[in-house]
Amino acid sequence: MNNFEFVNPTKIIYGEHQVAKLDENIPESAKVLLLYGGGSIKHTGTLDEVKKALGDRTVIEFGGIQANPEYEVLMQAVELIKKEKIDFLLAVGGGSVIDGTKFIAAAVYQDDPWDMLLQSGATIEKAMPIGSVLTISATGSEMNCIGVITRHEKNAKLGFSSPHVFPKFSVLDPSKLLTLPEKQTANGVVDAFVHVLEQYLTYPVNAKIQDRFSEGLLLTLKEEGLKVKSNDKDVAIRGNLMLASTFALNGILGMGVPQDWSTHDIGHQLTALYDIDHAQTLSIVLPGLWKVLKEQKSEKLLQYGERVWDITSGSIEERVDKAVEVTEKFFQEMGLKTKLKDYSLNDESIEEVVGLLEKYDLLPLGEKKNINADTVRKILKTQLE
Amino acid sequence: MNNFEFVNPTKIIYGEHQVAKLDENIPESAKVLLLYGGGSIKHTGTLDEVKKALGDRTVIEFGGIQANPEYEVLMQAVELIKKEKIDFLLAVGGGSVIDGTKFIAAAVYQDDPWDMLLQSGATIEKAMPIGSVLTISATGSEMNCIGVITRHEKNAKLGFSSPHVFPKFSVLDPSKLLTLPEKQTANGVVDAFVHVLEQYLTYPVNAKIQDRFSEGLLLTLKEEGLKVKSNDKDVAIRGNLMLASTFALNGILGMGVPQDWSTHDIGHQLTALYDIDHAQTLSIVLPGLWKVLKEQKSEKLLQYGERVWDITSGSIEERVDKAVEVTEKFFQEMGLKTKLKDYSLNDESIEEVVGLLEKYDLLPLGEKKNINADTVRKILKTQLE
Repeated sequence: MNNFEFVNPTKIIYGEHQVAKLDENIPESAKVLLLYGGGSIKHTGTLDEVKKALGDRTVIEFGGIQANPEYEVLMQAVELIKKEKIDFLLAVGGGSVIDGTKFIAAAVYQDDPWDMLLQSGATIEKAMPIGSVLTISATGSEMNCIGVITRHEKNAKLGFSSPHVFPKFSVLDPSKLLTLPEKQTANGVVDAFVHVLEQYLTYPVNAKIQDRFSEGLLLTLKEEGLKVKSNDKDVAIRGNLMLASTFALNGILGMGVPQDWSTHDIGHQLTALYDIDHAQTLSIVLPGLWKVLKEQKSEKLLQYGERVWDITSGSIEERVDKAVEVTEKFFQEMGLKTKLKDYSLNDESIEEVVGLLEKYDLLPLGEKKNINADTVRKILKTQLE
Repeated sequence: MNNFEFVNPTKIIYGEHQVAKLDENIPESAKVLLLYGGGSIKHTGTLDEVKKALGDRTVIEFGGIQANPEYEVLMQAVELIKKEKIDFLLAVGGGSVIDGTKFIAAAVYQDDPWDMLLQSGATIEKAMPIGSVLTISATGSEMNCIGVITRHEKNAKLGFSSPHVFPKFSVLDPSKLLTLPEKQTANGVVDAFVHVLEQYLTYPVNAKIQDRFSEGLLLTLKEEGLKVKSNDKDVAIRGNLMLASTFALNGILGMGVPQDWSTHDIGHQLTALYDIDHAQTLSIVLPGLWKVLKEQKSEKLLQYGERVWDITSGSIEERVDKAVEVTEKFFQEMGLKTKLKDYSLNDESIEEVVGLLEKYDLLPLGEKKNINADTVRKILKTQLE
């Protein structure tokens, strides 16, 4: 195992009806900006529940933070915070709302917040305190210090991280997931599944605990993911999926191990260019990546195949191929597409993706930094149809 | 899964030669009390390494915190801190030194620190900042907010916990474990193994992630534990064991699941009365506990048997018995004894243990709070010889 530092100060408050605990976790005197996405938290009752928990605190609302939170929208919240002298940010939503809130929390103190994204968060020295109430389980943003922001004007979808933007707390009430559309549930399962794989499916460094924690999450996501569609009102299944997404990207799996993240980096460009849902870009890219890089990843593919999918017979090559195959099939069973053609994309689209990766200086990618423009082309061509 | 709150703000700094990072993790102006146990950190060079990393800071040493840290000794450090106006505590050692340091950090602010133990830490509202350099892997104290203190004068070994005593950071350099006596290594493996079991081996609540994380640690402790004796200079094995001990008791396994801890509560009395090493009390009590409570724990014993020891054939009763049997055998293979007779203890000793549990009002015990004085007698009688 490699050297590492790990810290994660976010408090998790898990369970049904735990939104009431906002009261004891936000300063009594706080002037709160309540950030959310579309109107769903209004008709599910979550907005009322949150406001009730906040009691007599002054609360100002800022709605409209959509999927792939948009720079220009978030900057409006920054202005509002300065004008209203807000001192606590409460994100109510999924990864996009929480990512957006992290950006806002830091952008308030930045001369030019765009630099913060161009430099992956390196310019952040301070941020406002954040809390969250999670209503969509997927990205793990509720318990990490990472955000991804989109700026359509520049065709950009860029990530940043800083220890200053860890949420102080996140409320995980699994019953909030019961009203999610089937597609969002499926996207969440695949997103978390790939988060685990980005940290696990590289090459072995004898990190037995990180490997087994990863496999435990993959098994749980697989089992509960395949069950949730026909059991969409089962809070216990939702609870296991919710906690799996949170732990898939709270830093524990990545301790002292090589990490990949090229599926995300390539996928982000597909979202920036064609507005494809984040998880749906991952389900296209990951199988292609593995097909092209299966030799480099063979030891971990074998281990993954055996421990997660019970693939124990056949030659090494057959078992590796089988591991790739069942994973692509799993994404499809979850209802996600895995081919560019499914979105009417073609060879030209591949060039656009490569162009954007070059423009934002994101190449080379992967745990060995050996994925260059040509490898990206190969990966995406594999998934054309 | 049950409702829970989880937070753990301790930073882990893992790897060889990471002691040097003390410099960037302790305030430059700090006046440091360096706490340790016997002389081993002197002849291994760790004391010099630590002092070098602390640079120009004023450092005062306080040695002599032995296994089962003693109240009267720790109170001397409290006096020293007040006299010398110390403002940072650096524990260099194993669980006993770190536990003792946590007690000291809080006791400085207490009118009567004894109350703090009688009330399990409930009186703690404040504590001095603590860092640690781990040299013995076992208790997990380096990443939790728990301590256990002994007061011989009162035949007491009592635990406390408080969010105020989380270490700010802990340095985990696996090469520090290479010089440990074989007995301490084995004790550490068994201690961590039982920490996992106290949180896992109760009854199922469909907490799939916590179960699989627990099983991942048990498998790692079993595999690496059985290897370490004949590979005692292998840093990779030490690293996996070190991280396993830390994660065995940093709060993650216990999220939203019932917990037992009766093996610890009974074992503590054996240490208080007869000075038996902590882990060695656990290896006596746990098999007895399971033999007596195997019906109550049967579902988890079956799951544990299958996933950790590959016990998949036989009747339910046979598989449960086998799971208990292989666990006791594992402790013995690690070199720990499992019978009271091995320490010349008898029926009278059992009455002394029960007397102490009653004196400190610790009964009833266990995840169902159904272990009373008579059950404790049965458990210990099972392990007489």
